[in-house]
Amino acid sequence: MREQSNGHHPDLEMALHHLLSSGGKRVRPTVTLLVGGMLGAEQKHVITLAAAVELLHTATLVHDDVIDGSLLRRGSPTLNARWSPGATILTGDFIFARAAKLAAETESIDVMKLFAKTLSTIVNGEITQLFISKGLVNREDYYQRIYAKTASLFELCTIAPVFLSGEDRVKIKYMQKFGYEVGMAFQIVDDILDFTSDQTELGKPVANDLRQGLVTLPALHYLEKNPDDPDMKSVVENRIVSEEAIIEVVNAIRESGAIESAMNEAIMFIERALSALSHFPESAERRALEALAKFVVSRQI
Amino acid sequence: MREQSNGHHPDLEMALHHLLSSGGKRVRPTVTLLVGGMLGAEQKHVITLAAAVELLHTATLVHDDVIDGSLLRRGSPTLNARWSPGATILTGDFIFARAAKLAAETESIDVMKLFAKTLSTIVNGEITQLFISKGLVNREDYYQRIYAKTASLFELCTIAPVFLSGEDRVKIKYMQKFGYEVGMAFQIVDDILDFTSDQTELGKPVANDLRQGLVTLPALHYLEKNPDDPDMKSVVENRIVSEEAIIEVVNAIRESGAIESAMNEAIMFIERALSALSHFPESAERRALEALAKFVVSRQI
Repeated sequence: MREQSNGHHPDLEMALHHLLSSGGKRVRPTVTLLVGGMLGAEQKHVITLAAAVELLHTATLVHDDVIDGSLLRRGSPTLNARWSPGATILTGDFIFARAAKLAAETESIDVMKLFAKTLSTIVNGEITQLFISKGLVNREDYYQRIYAKTASLFELCTIAPVFLSGEDRVKIKYMQKFGYEVGMAFQIVDDILDFTSDQTELGKPVANDLRQGLVTLPALHYLEKNPDDPDMKSVVENRIVSEEAIIEVVNAIRESGAIESAMNEAIMFIERALSALSHFPESAERRALEALAKFVVSRQI
Repeated sequence: MREQSNGHHPDLEMALHHLLSSGGKRVRPTVTLLVGGMLGAEQKHVITLAAAVELLHTATLVHDDVIDGSLLRRGSPTLNARWSPGATILTGDFIFARAAKLAAETESIDVMKLFAKTLSTIVNGEITQLFISKGLVNREDYYQRIYAKTASLFELCTIAPVFLSGEDRVKIKYMQKFGYEVGMAFQIVDDILDFTSDQTELGKPVANDLRQGLVTLPALHYLEKNPDDPDMKSVVENRIVSEEAIIEVVNAIRESGAIESAMNEAIMFIERALSALSHFPESAERRALEALAKFVVSRQI
């Protein structure tokens, strides 16, 4: 990934270094590498694909941070906090370009097509999120949003290695299902952590989503049980609310059992993921994927 | 091109419609279609490629307009003038994604690789332009900049159809040369028009580049003959200068013969382009490409 800025502007190299040093769990490339290994795809191409996936993810985060005006990500200053918006937009574009280059280097047209389709899905999801009246969501909207935001890229990680392997393409539907279910659970847990972690752990203020009028699964569960909570209504309707009101709402959600209900949903997604995985023969990689899937619903951060 | 927003957010459809309705000469897809026709490449794939090229170009313009804060392009309001920066950035990303999708639909990995490489070149050029001390340029910097900005994409238009044809790949170097030379001339003429046209014709203020401290070929020719012009120095060193001083400089450049010298350079690029083209057998498409190349240095707008 770091090699992708070689021969380009030195500030780009610095920016890429900064972005790739600021941590992140590298869940997506890990999934890609494990699925590729499990299916016996050519390692060289799988590694290239894994780097392409992580760079695509990084590029979308860079643009997200410009759009939101975020100054922190993973506890580190964003590019946006250090550079002009113009330089940050272009850095995101450059990373897209390098991700596309790596995707092409897998030598698979099917991978390229899926790559381009996934980028459309992610961006269309963000545009939808930007335009909808934020408060008015139901579960269906929520699932669609987290599919576009997260699960679509997990699907890319699990489907693309099938294209790079000699595997029967019938296997695609199980790999697609595994990627989908893990991705959905992953985003639900992220949304839960937004309520349960504090700023030190997460690198951003608690209930950051809610502050932006974004209703996620814990809030949805709470709303279903308490449709008339006036503070919650104010937040959902995106009115300006005091810090005290936000904290009240967060505490009410935490105490209502909504967090546990949301986590139970995530666990059901993971159970379906494991069931899809059971269609593949036992192997070290399969066991690692099972462990990774279970880890998604056990992580505290 | 218009079909690319189908099934996505309605505002995207509106935005794409607006962008594709606001004119433009469609030079790049025309070159692509003619080269593809001349080489006997499969028409379906050439048409897809031509749309991919124009969308890639459109996406870079959309992001440029956000970065520059431009409110007019081709005499029409930019997306940026109507939408929030966030929505505009995402629309650009979406158009990139659709361009990549179309490029993948040519079913050629070589096309995909060239496509990704060209995007890197364009974006790296823009980043360089953003970071360099703007006034301090020499011819070498200028040529590099216009290669990244314009000629690299023209090369894509002329090389990629070779990949889609059964043509001997030895032909690539002549097609590459044709694309390069026409692209360089095209940008030089654009830079000349920035000095010779007025706002009504061009849809932006005269000497727009110079106002942004961007020295192009006419200004370079003028500077080589008049290195000590104080007004020109102020502009080049990016100091704040009055409207009167700008107009003085524009008039001095117009009267110095610098425009003619720059145009002579553009004509030499076109002569080399025609010479590269002469390696291909006579055909209706070759004649059309010759006419198009000559038109580049005769257009008034």
